[in-house]
Amino acid sequence: MRGWPGPPSHRRRARMPVFSRKPAETATIDDREVEALDRWFRAANYLAVGQIYLLDNPLLERPLVAADIKPRLLGHWGTTPGLNLLWTHLNRLIRQRDVNAIFLAGPGHGGPAAVANAWLEGTYSEVYPHVGSDRDGMRALFRQFSFPGGIPSHVAPETPGSIHEGGELGYVLSHAYGAAMDNPDLVVAAVVGDGEFETGPLAASWHANKFVDPVRDGAVLPILHLNGYKIANPTVPARIPREELESLLRGYGHEVITVEGDDPYDVHRQLATALDRAHDRIREIQRGAREDGQTERRPWPMVLLVTPKGWTGPATVDGVQVEGTWRAHQVPLAETRENDEHRAILEQWLRSYRPEELFEPTGVPAAGLRDLAPHGVRRMSANPHANGGLLRTPLRLPDFRTHAVEVTEPGGSIHEPTRVLGRYLVDVVRDNDSTFRIFGPDETASNRLDAVYEVTDKVFAGEIRPTDEHLAHSGRVMEILSEHTCQGWLEGYLLTGRHGLFSCYEAFIHLVDSMFNQHAKWLKTTRDLAWRPRISSLNYLLSSHVWRQDHNGFSHQDPGFIDHVVNKKAEVVRVYLPPDTNTLLSTMQHCLSSQQYVNVVVAGKQPSFDWLDAESADLHCARGVGIWDWASNDDGDPDVVIGCAGDVPTLEALAAVSILREHLPDLRIRFVNVVDLMRLQDEKEHPHGLSDRDFDTLFTIDKPVIFAYHGYPWLIHRLTYRRTNHHNLHVRGYKEEGTTTTPFDMVMMNEIDRYHLVMDVIDRVPGLGSRAALLRQQMGDTRRRARQWTREHGDDLPEVREWSWSELSAPRHGRSPSTTAAPATSADFV
Amino acid sequence: MRGWPGPPSHRRRARMPVFSRKPAETATIDDREVEALDRWFRAANYLAVGQIYLLDNPLLERPLVAADIKPRLLGHWGTTPGLNLLWTHLNRLIRQRDVNAIFLAGPGHGGPAAVANAWLEGTYSEVYPHVGSDRDGMRALFRQFSFPGGIPSHVAPETPGSIHEGGELGYVLSHAYGAAMDNPDLVVAAVVGDGEFETGPLAASWHANKFVDPVRDGAVLPILHLNGYKIANPTVPARIPREELESLLRGYGHEVITVEGDDPYDVHRQLATALDRAHDRIREIQRGAREDGQTERRPWPMVLLVTPKGWTGPATVDGVQVEGTWRAHQVPLAETRENDEHRAILEQWLRSYRPEELFEPTGVPAAGLRDLAPHGVRRMSANPHANGGLLRTPLRLPDFRTHAVEVTEPGGSIHEPTRVLGRYLVDVVRDNDSTFRIFGPDETASNRLDAVYEVTDKVFAGEIRPTDEHLAHSGRVMEILSEHTCQGWLEGYLLTGRHGLFSCYEAFIHLVDSMFNQHAKWLKTTRDLAWRPRISSLNYLLSSHVWRQDHNGFSHQDPGFIDHVVNKKAEVVRVYLPPDTNTLLSTMQHCLSSQQYVNVVVAGKQPSFDWLDAESADLHCARGVGIWDWASNDDGDPDVVIGCAGDVPTLEALAAVSILREHLPDLRIRFVNVVDLMRLQDEKEHPHGLSDRDFDTLFTIDKPVIFAYHGYPWLIHRLTYRRTNHHNLHVRGYKEEGTTTTPFDMVMMNEIDRYHLVMDVIDRVPGLGSRAALLRQQMGDTRRRARQWTREHGDDLPEVREWSWSELSAPRHGRSPSTTAAPATSADFV
Repeated sequence: MRGWPGPPSHRRRARMPVFSRKPAETATIDDREVEALDRWFRAANYLAVGQIYLLDNPLLERPLVAADIKPRLLGHWGTTPGLNLLWTHLNRLIRQRDVNAIFLAGPGHGGPAAVANAWLEGTYSEVYPHVGSDRDGMRALFRQFSFPGGIPSHVAPETPGSIHEGGELGYVLSHAYGAAMDNPDLVVAAVVGDGEFETGPLAASWHANKFVDPVRDGAVLPILHLNGYKIANPTVPARIPREELESLLRGYGHEVITVEGDDPYDVHRQLATALDRAHDRIREIQRGAREDGQTERRPWPMVLLVTPKGWTGPATVDGVQVEGTWRAHQVPLAETRENDEHRAILEQWLRSYRPEELFEPTGVPAAGLRDLAPHGVRRMSANPHANGGLLRTPLRLPDFRTHAVEVTEPGGSIHEPTRVLGRYLVDVVRDNDSTFRIFGPDETASNRLDAVYEVTDKVFAGEIRPTDEHLAHSGRVMEILSEHTCQGWLEGYLLTGRHGLFSCYEAFIHLVDSMFNQHAKWLKTTRDLAWRPRISSLNYLLSSHVWRQDHNGFSHQDPGFIDHVVNKKAEVVRVYLPPDTNTLLSTMQHCLSSQQYVNVVVAGKQPSFDWLDAESADLHCARGVGIWDWASNDDGDPDVVIGCAGDVPTLEALAAVSILREHLPDLRIRFVNVVDLMRLQDEKEHPHGLSDRDFDTLFTIDKPVIFAYHGYPWLIHRLTYRRTNHHNLHVRGYKEEGTTTTPFDMVMMNEIDRYHLVMDVIDRVPGLGSRAALLRQQMGDTRRRARQWTREHGDDLPEVREWSWSELSAPRHGRSPSTTAAPATSADFV
Repeated sequence: MRGWPGPPSHRRRARMPVFSRKPAETATIDDREVEALDRWFRAANYLAVGQIYLLDNPLLERPLVAADIKPRLLGHWGTTPGLNLLWTHLNRLIRQRDVNAIFLAGPGHGGPAAVANAWLEGTYSEVYPHVGSDRDGMRALFRQFSFPGGIPSHVAPETPGSIHEGGELGYVLSHAYGAAMDNPDLVVAAVVGDGEFETGPLAASWHANKFVDPVRDGAVLPILHLNGYKIANPTVPARIPREELESLLRGYGHEVITVEGDDPYDVHRQLATALDRAHDRIREIQRGAREDGQTERRPWPMVLLVTPKGWTGPATVDGVQVEGTWRAHQVPLAETRENDEHRAILEQWLRSYRPEELFEPTGVPAAGLRDLAPHGVRRMSANPHANGGLLRTPLRLPDFRTHAVEVTEPGGSIHEPTRVLGRYLVDVVRDNDSTFRIFGPDETASNRLDAVYEVTDKVFAGEIRPTDEHLAHSGRVMEILSEHTCQGWLEGYLLTGRHGLFSCYEAFIHLVDSMFNQHAKWLKTTRDLAWRPRISSLNYLLSSHVWRQDHNGFSHQDPGFIDHVVNKKAEVVRVYLPPDTNTLLSTMQHCLSSQQYVNVVVAGKQPSFDWLDAESADLHCARGVGIWDWASNDDGDPDVVIGCAGDVPTLEALAAVSILREHLPDLRIRFVNVVDLMRLQDEKEHPHGLSDRDFDTLFTIDKPVIFAYHGYPWLIHRLTYRRTNHHNLHVRGYKEEGTTTTPFDMVMMNEIDRYHLVMDVIDRVPGLGSRAALLRQQMGDTRRRARQWTREHGDDLPEVREWSWSELSAPRHGRSPSTTAAPATSADFV
């Protein structure tokens, strides 16, 4: 066969489930059960339509009038009946087999469905007592939906049973696989919309099934729902030959069970059978792996569900087809308040669900309906896995001091910070072997965390060959070359109550900017939901950072993720720039124990000087910013403040200090290092912000401040523009100045190098005299020589490579390293 | 078959190309041709290894010594031989069939390959005469690679023949399809690495083949190169059963032609045949569509190439296997300068390519080698499609005035700005029917640009049904629900010399933050490459913006793309916030005619007031910022400046002015609107920046400035922190303040509403007296009432919804609208 046959007839082609190409078996459920399923389906649809349209008259006790209709009709009907159908049938599976399942709605714009089912299950009224399980409650349920002071139109943090917002499409499968990890009994039903199917993150995440350990992990049941349309277009998977789509899904590693139709009873029969079979297959795979020691990867089942968009809604409106087209995407009847005809269609539509069979006259769901809900925590709306804070236990964390490097004098030794962190993580992995994972896009070893392979492996369910290293069916390290999948996995893992670390190249973490946005919004919203206990923080370790991308060049240089993060609500974001090994350890210990934040930690992997011993590091990190006495000679009254944040800027700033000390010994320098970037911000803007008084104490109110910063320099201005001494602040940082290929050339190109910092100081401190003028000239000459040297020799000037913080330049550092931290403030280090 | 058979033997399984499951045909090329192909392959490999390692002794005229070796070994060998192999064979195809082809290297870290082939083809020396086609040139070629002052280690803008950087993985297919659009004779060879294969953007972009018009577009030939490994791991596609992978690729809509082996001569035979067949198939499909009117989508050919990572490199080093493993990813011999044994292996490796057969003693490529290169513009390194500025012709643009709305008085009429823009675009589409396309993730109609469907359609090669609207095999609108694919398409289209517009929801444009980064870096770098003429700007139209996401809620609210964009080099980024319909038209006309920028235009789609007539709008946009006289009563000496940027902030600011005028008629207000955000920045920081003098003239040096801004408020501070009057600047903007469901509630929640702005003015202007105090109290009461009203009625307060800029409140606006723009400066509007 060279091509494909002509387009298939879309509907009514394969009504019975197709299972592994065997003839479909006869459905085994009886008519009474079908009728019961349909009742729930109708009830959920009724409640969804009610949410979209009704202000009042929830039980249709009288004909609908204009005042019963909301003035602004907002919501998405199109995907909603499909979600209701699936919830209905998953409940059957849960009841009949006592399955522990949660529901992830990829098409999260179908918010009315999740809310309707949670209300039918009683959970909604338990969580929100003002939305009771009766007529008044139903009225409140309808009224609040997408209404000022009410709830969002999408599945949201406010929705019981949800860990997946769905506001931005593409993440349902990676969230689902993250939720299933280390939850061997859990089944995560993940509905993929056929619009979402087109997105990149979703397309990549199909391959997450090659990272499932059927022994220790639970199962994901992907359900691809083809309703055929997006906002204004057909979807791609609905418009390719079915055999092509099935070839694709089998190629993703799935066995496809198809359910297709537009007659509810028929579809109920098909779907019940399909879910039974899918669940049988899941258990078969798990039993094989758990009991019979089968190690070979086997295709996991998935369901392909084909039903019309806006199913059971108005077939046509104003003479135009709505059901089964993109026109059903949002609100099929747009003028229901003003237009009597539309309102009549709405009433007819609502009555088509026969509410009188579904609810008691009091509004309470009818007895036969209530019996269809699973009990207690088996309800998908009440499953604690969908409210991870309930299940979360703190990590067992070693004291970082047990892994701290010995530092007898600042700059007296050299370590690779992330490599030492790797040793700390060995303990974390060993002591938390079912609640902690490390995620990364093929960069765990590159970022020098590979010590963890002493105690764990990278998970892989594909073929493993004898030459592979640290690859196994089970392990704590998750690597796939998709930042989107890594982020989605970690979010799913955290939202279900566990802990994790995402290690990534700094530049490419921008790939998940938008995912970070959604997660930060989730954290912000759930802080105010008392019924959702806090979850673990999302921890980023960004290594291979902008200053050490000299070998990969311009395309790998971008420190802007920090800028992106600080736009989000202050109460949920934290940014740390530990300058050396021990501060990295202290910072990471703190981050791993924290809750409800996004922590961004930027740290180097290259060999670099140790500045602080364990105790000094801990104090410095606890305070977040501090004067390094051993690098200062200001005796409380500086001529200039040299500030820095980030490992490379700290190195260059200290080297600048050593030059100034040697050549201008009378210049009184205060050296301030910032670990916790948010300390710079106003205390009114961020909980970590220094008070103005404390800021002024550190940075003075009138002396020049030369600040060497890891990222884009203007961020420092943005954080400090309200400070007294802001007009004296001169920031050096990354400026998109193109590629280069030695570390020092890179800093020179952006004018954040030691020589330029010395020039900055001389330019800004008045009255330094002729010796300083001479030094300034010398610095310019040295810079030119350094540039020339790299072009001739391909490496940095030896005096740069071999520089160290010497006795001569720092006469006071003989004593043990210490920091004078920021004055204590009301803002604790949290 | 329920599962799969056991893991297949990886190599030597299917040596002959598989074509549509028919028995493989015998290769038709003779031994002499195979030998010739292998010579080019060896030469390219030799030149690639030389680039990675050698400072000197390029022709190995003497044994290698330490000084011949670079001190820092940087580069990626692993993928390089595969790219060389493909370039070799594509050249054969080009020569034999006169094919017009370009080469896109997905694994762009294989920079040495692209450079080596460009040098062999002579192009490199034509573009860079200092790298001649002889021994000195070869030495320069080797030395410059990943060397200070030299060229990047990745395929880069500096590389002749490249439109695809490859620094960040995932975009090669979308770039390729963008390049092929409207180039019916072009064949775009797109190499997909098996690491890149795992990324989300790449995974989605396979479906781009459903958007190719075989009549008007060229062809993309995807070549999936399985070398089996990433940085530290095997790749997913290399470790699933081959039949599963082929099922996936067929599911993507391709006919798979497999080439596999590790014996070069054998692979040469297979690959030559495979490319011949793939090209036959491409022509067959095109002929069918163009000559026989076939409209049915047919599977396009693709090549699956399986060769070892680091092929032809050292098999083992220090007793460990390197070739055919992840260890070949970067530099197989890390200590070549210091370690004599490594250096000996390197020399042996280089000599294995028999350089004496490849180059004359002078270093010139041997005659037999030179003959293998295509001629002139047929060389892939010299094809003008890979240097789009050469082919670019300006768009034919109508004068926006022909579509401007009539404005007889400010606020006297209402239009939907993007809907009117749609009418303008009708002309653009009609007058540029092979050089302009509109891209968007299913949002063209949602963003109200649907007038364009009067003259064109949305392209779709999948099944089209009678109920579909505006869907056709040919058209100017590209819609797929993947922002990544849209962006990649547009980049590919622009980089090959055409024009386009990307219309997207504001919040979700963050999905392509990282792609924007790479494109901005490309534009920055190519500005300095004289041989690359400028290309058209990348134009974003962000509608459905943060202030009108009340119906979708918190998850759809994010104005941070602007912040992200302004981090990039000032000379390539522009941000516009047109406040009404005519300013949007003027702005867009400017953007569409511009070159070498990224233009971000944020504009509303909801009905909103017209403020400026066409001439005033044009002047205002040309100046970028200006005083609106008709909204001001300061007579040159204001008590307060009210500034604004963005459509909703402008509305609220004007409403605040109307309240202040009514209640505090003596208060002298200056009203300043900003269209071009970069005008706020210092002229030293951005070419559009106002001089301090001009800024001071507009915003005063000592009066309170209340500024209502579309996005995160601190961006305005960041842009203006150096300005004289910055300490008097009070900015209101979006603050991540959660969901809501009416437009006015949304602005109230973020305190950017008219009532709050009035309170801000009263708080900051001294000496306003008791009447102002009363007004302030009244404003607070009104806000509370407005909030309460939304909660009761589900809609905004009538006095808010019905507000208009009235005679009463603006006594001077009877005359025609006008603006007093910023003083002319040296910064032209470019």
